[in-house]
Amino acid sequence: PLRGKHDDYSLVFADLTQEEYSQVQQYMLRQKNLDISTHQLTKPSDNYLFLIDLSLPKKADALAYLDGKGSKPVREATVVVFHGAQGYIKEYLVWPLPNPTHHRDVTTDRYKEQLPINARTVTVGEYALLFRFLEAEVFSHLEKLLKESFNASGKTLNAFEQMPRGVRSGDRQTWIAFHRDFSSMYIQPVGFEVLVDHKSVNASYWAVKRLLYNGVYFDTVADLQKKYDSGSVKKIVYKKSLDYGSLKPRTKPLQVAPQQFYMEGKRFSVNHNQVLYLDWSFAFGLSSLTGMRVFDVRFKGERIAYELSVQEAMSVYGSVTPGMMLTKFFDSSIGIGRFAHELVRGVDCPYAATYVDTYRYIDVPVPVRFRNSICIFEHNMGQPLRRHFADFFHNSYGGMVNSALVFRTITAIGNYDYMWDFIFYQSGAVEAKVHATGYISASYLVNGSLKHGHQVAENVLGNIHTHFINFKVDLDLLGVKNVFQTKDMEFVNVSLPWMPHHYAMVPQLVENQLKTEQEAALRYNTKTPRYLHIASDKLNRWGHQRSYRLQVYSFAGDHLPESQAEEKAMSWARYKVAITKHKDSEQTSSSLYNQNDVWSPAVDFSKYIADNESIENEDLVAWVTAGFLHIPHSEDIPNTVTVGNGGGVLLRPHNYFDEDPSIDSPDGVYFGPG
Amino acid sequence: PLRGKHDDYSLVFADLTQEEYSQVQQYMLRQKNLDISTHQLTKPSDNYLFLIDLSLPKKADALAYLDGKGSKPVREATVVVFHGAQGYIKEYLVWPLPNPTHHRDVTTDRYKEQLPINARTVTVGEYALLFRFLEAEVFSHLEKLLKESFNASGKTLNAFEQMPRGVRSGDRQTWIAFHRDFSSMYIQPVGFEVLVDHKSVNASYWAVKRLLYNGVYFDTVADLQKKYDSGSVKKIVYKKSLDYGSLKPRTKPLQVAPQQFYMEGKRFSVNHNQVLYLDWSFAFGLSSLTGMRVFDVRFKGERIAYELSVQEAMSVYGSVTPGMMLTKFFDSSIGIGRFAHELVRGVDCPYAATYVDTYRYIDVPVPVRFRNSICIFEHNMGQPLRRHFADFFHNSYGGMVNSALVFRTITAIGNYDYMWDFIFYQSGAVEAKVHATGYISASYLVNGSLKHGHQVAENVLGNIHTHFINFKVDLDLLGVKNVFQTKDMEFVNVSLPWMPHHYAMVPQLVENQLKTEQEAALRYNTKTPRYLHIASDKLNRWGHQRSYRLQVYSFAGDHLPESQAEEKAMSWARYKVAITKHKDSEQTSSSLYNQNDVWSPAVDFSKYIADNESIENEDLVAWVTAGFLHIPHSEDIPNTVTVGNGGGVLLRPHNYFDEDPSIDSPDGVYFGPG
Ligand SMILES: [Ca+2]
Ligand SMILES: [Ca+2]
Ligand SMILES: [Ca+2]
Ligand SMILES: [Ca+2]
Ligand SMILES: [Cu+2]
Ligand SMILES: [Cu+2]
Repeated sequence: PLRGKHDDYSLVFADLTQEEYSQVQQYMLRQKNLDISTHQLTKPSDNYLFLIDLSLPKKADALAYLDGKGSKPVREATVVVFHGAQGYIKEYLVWPLPNPTHHRDVTTDRYKEQLPINARTVTVGEYALLFRFLEAEVFSHLEKLLKESFNASGKTLNAFEQMPRGVRSGDRQTWIAFHRDFSSMYIQPVGFEVLVDHKSVNASYWAVKRLLYNGVYFDTVADLQKKYDSGSVKKIVYKKSLDYGSLKPRTKPLQVAPQQFYMEGKRFSVNHNQVLYLDWSFAFGLSSLTGMRVFDVRFKGERIAYELSVQEAMSVYGSVTPGMMLTKFFDSSIGIGRFAHELVRGVDCPYAATYVDTYRYIDVPVPVRFRNSICIFEHNMGQPLRRHFADFFHNSYGGMVNSALVFRTITAIGNYDYMWDFIFYQSGAVEAKVHATGYISASYLVNGSLKHGHQVAENVLGNIHTHFINFKVDLDLLGVKNVFQTKDMEFVNVSLPWMPHHYAMVPQLVENQLKTEQEAALRYNTKTPRYLHIASDKLNRWGHQRSYRLQVYSFAGDHLPESQAEEKAMSWARYKVAITKHKDSEQTSSSLYNQNDVWSPAVDFSKYIADNESIENEDLVAWVTAGFLHIPHSEDIPNTVTVGNGGGVLLRPHNYFDEDPSIDSPDGVYFGPG
Repeated sequence: PLRGKHDDYSLVFADLTQEEYSQVQQYMLRQKNLDISTHQLTKPSDNYLFLIDLSLPKKADALAYLDGKGSKPVREATVVVFHGAQGYIKEYLVWPLPNPTHHRDVTTDRYKEQLPINARTVTVGEYALLFRFLEAEVFSHLEKLLKESFNASGKTLNAFEQMPRGVRSGDRQTWIAFHRDFSSMYIQPVGFEVLVDHKSVNASYWAVKRLLYNGVYFDTVADLQKKYDSGSVKKIVYKKSLDYGSLKPRTKPLQVAPQQFYMEGKRFSVNHNQVLYLDWSFAFGLSSLTGMRVFDVRFKGERIAYELSVQEAMSVYGSVTPGMMLTKFFDSSIGIGRFAHELVRGVDCPYAATYVDTYRYIDVPVPVRFRNSICIFEHNMGQPLRRHFADFFHNSYGGMVNSALVFRTITAIGNYDYMWDFIFYQSGAVEAKVHATGYISASYLVNGSLKHGHQVAENVLGNIHTHFINFKVDLDLLGVKNVFQTKDMEFVNVSLPWMPHHYAMVPQLVENQLKTEQEAALRYNTKTPRYLHIASDKLNRWGHQRSYRLQVYSFAGDHLPESQAEEKAMSWARYKVAITKHKDSEQTSSSLYNQNDVWSPAVDFSKYIADNESIENEDLVAWVTAGFLHIPHSEDIPNTVTVGNGGGVLLRPHNYFDEDPSIDSPDGVYFGPG
């Protein structure tokens, strides 16, 4: 039996339905003056409808609706059009859904400037042209080399491209490294890389700018071809490579691993995009770009968080070879939620989980259904949430198992798979966690490679890199007006009252309230107070400000020196936690456009705090960065394991309730004496 | 079906059997010249057999035996006798078990000096005298006060004593705070504390040195009594207190929480003190003092660790009231393993776990059996250990669930319950973790209290404190001769080979080998390299040193300024990780005697590294400290929750295997296209 009842309020945050995507697409196609194509192979020089996604309601409107003080906000979609014909990108707001009648260009509202066309994500259409270009301009001239070196042709080499595409704004030059034709292609580099300039939307202007073969650079295909044929280049001699990256089991199943069951049925329920679980309720969605998110997170009916969402997953690589020398991946520019594929029962999530389909429209001609791409399950964590055994003066035992609700997607963006979890505990805590698995990115081993990682296979370097993840944590504690507090300990020398000549260092509590955005931007490389709190001015029963603490789990490396032009596009990664005053116009810490115009990013998070607004009794948003330094090692072959490769943030009540709410859990167990 | 077969080698690390304890006890009693008593109420002025515990074999002997190069080491016991009659403590080695015929005083061998009698743990016998003393000297004179203020008598006030007992070596003065008679007594202070001097082994010399009532100090009981009766003291007026610390459920069970089952039986086996689980095997034991430990930890038959053990759990408290102003608890001086009580099925461990009994002899007249005090279970962690979904160029899925073996005890030492886990993963990683739960220590709220914590109940302060846990990690990687390496990243400015005028900051790998104990003592308050490794000089297939990485999870506060006399007793807490050259004589980082002679501790860990020995190609031991700062809050009532309140260390292979060993797991799953 559920404690609560489903309602329709969560739908205000629901992703677009298949029908809504279609309606928006059709509406856009009817705007003949925009001259938009929805064909997947639309050329870069044409106008392509790249993305349709929910446009989130203004927070004030949504809150008024949720709190019964306003009508349901009009449902709106964001449409991203790559106007190749005009040389710019536009974002349109389209409304009202499900039957749109209006649209408006909101590009400069949102980004304060025009979006240049080369800030766009490479589309399926552009990839098709790139592959055709490579065949015509590269592979067809190097058949002998490909055969002798790799026993391959252009068709049997897999391309792995690197980003950013150049070194300055406007550039669109991509180093493409070629890999053997295995599903583990990412760890199968052959030692051949090509730099293609595809800056022009007109593919006939594209050009090969440089090639790398066996560690040596060549200016042109002809140059490489000539030197290869003349024997003046040290050849790679083909050697059959084993599929060392195969994930095929080598052992027969022994016995089934332990399985979890709901012996008396599920204690949670999913209806549309609303989840109820014991004292918890929330709405959920999956943005094609930023991925998983929940809204209106309530515990015992009281809103704790307005939004908790993934914002960005960023990695910086090191290498001596060009393919990964400059690599900085910004996954939300390709689409994090875009790659939330079907979850495998019994592996990705427990068998008995509830699986939810999602629908997306990103770089496709029609909306696409992704079956079972979200899973929701209650899990027995294998430990008590709390317990005490008394045997001094009293004999008794009280405790309860830690059984919590997990909300999960796994996004496989090329080589890497990120597992995203939001976990709802019976103690009133919520956790946002990410773990990395899948294939590392690897490069062909040449002289000097080992400065950038470890060898992990024959002629293969596992490149050193970082993982940085940004979460948006919009807690609203007893209303939207909150403050940011820190707490820590400090030893103070005090005289003992019963022995005044004797002094001792005694720990004291040190509390502070940080009052401006810049004070509250806590850099990774500085000592920060140990406890960070979003607090209400409302007091608990004992006179303390009701708060939630943000406990960050991170093993982050260094993100990038600020001297680098690319750093502004990842300026959120400077901070373990940064607090801003909420603005609807500051919806995300990154953008679809940061990857491909990294030098002049459409969203530079540091601007959110540059105005150094007051954060005293304001609607606060915490931007939390977690991550880890990854020095690949042989055990990353075939796949990185999740254990130890993760990070996140635990949001836990601190003087928020008058006592631990799990005392009211039906899972409590007690034994008295006799 | 198990992959391995049990053998008897693990018995070399087995705790004493009930019969062995009895034999040792009887042997000691036969040594008439020692004049030992085993009665639980033995007076401090007599000679009391306090402890019998396994004396671990010399490592070289044990290794020779395990590796088939030596005979089974003679089994020996350590016996601790509190020689009240002589004024010292002795440790005796007694052998051979099970039928001892010899004993030897090993005190100065082990501690380089005599152990003064007042370094002893307070025994049940001394407590009995203390309670009698309190009744006679305090309660019987204050019946009116107790009745009017607390509606209590001496019999219905629960004592909670603080440590250390004084301020200098030889002191044995204990502040005892009185608490209401609830099983949640720790959070029920009444506002009455008494300082008792029980320095003499002769109780007739004991004295009340000071009293605290309602925040005011009194020199004598008579003084308090007189002032109370004359009305010149502000009285506490009794008010019925609710049992706000009760763990009794307030809600009826709703539906059973999810449960885990072994549908095809257990994949692990426990025989005596040996565990086999898939590719893992290990021996285990439970020291009455230091708690849980495992030995001879092997993966695929190859020893990874000789020993992995809990060493100490230490807490420093802050308060304005004397009871908790100086408090520094050293749990191994009371006994961590001593309080490993029965685990509750379905709460402390899953129902289907294997439960093991343990036997102990500490401050008892006969060996005691603790039923089901260790649990061992395989747990589906609710996530994949690894997975990859391919949809670029290839379509396939490979993954496996993270199913791991957990070895657990929970020790309830007074107010707090520590949950200790060693977790064995199929990726070859082992994790040592601790979580805290149970009751916080609390003090009566007076003026100034709030500098040291938050109010958590009526007139109750939850005192700020730290948790510091020390683990001993004796990895032996391909033999005992290893080195200590660090790895990290560093940005280096390089010119791009294909564009030499352009420079970029590119991450490089920085590796170091630390060569002496002092170099390798990594202080908590300094920036330490991100990767820490114990490495062999043996290379993996790709030419890299085979190593295990130590990844420490910790949210530690500050342990104690080194200016404090008490700090030497916890000098291990200075270091996140410290590496020493293994010595049989440096078996533990703390001792049974550190608590009660904290100013002149029997074991000062910093001495292990003071000789700054070489750690190059030596048998290395890593001493790992994890912990967290605890600022109690209302949700610590009734019990602290485990979520977020923990720490530990993950030991993970890094270039140790040639690939991730989980690829050989029977749990692997693979789908190809079509
Ligand atoms: Ca701002
Ligand atoms: Ca907020
Ligand atoms: Ca030493
Ligand atoms: Ca060792
Ligand atoms: Cu990685
Ligand atoms: Cu605590």
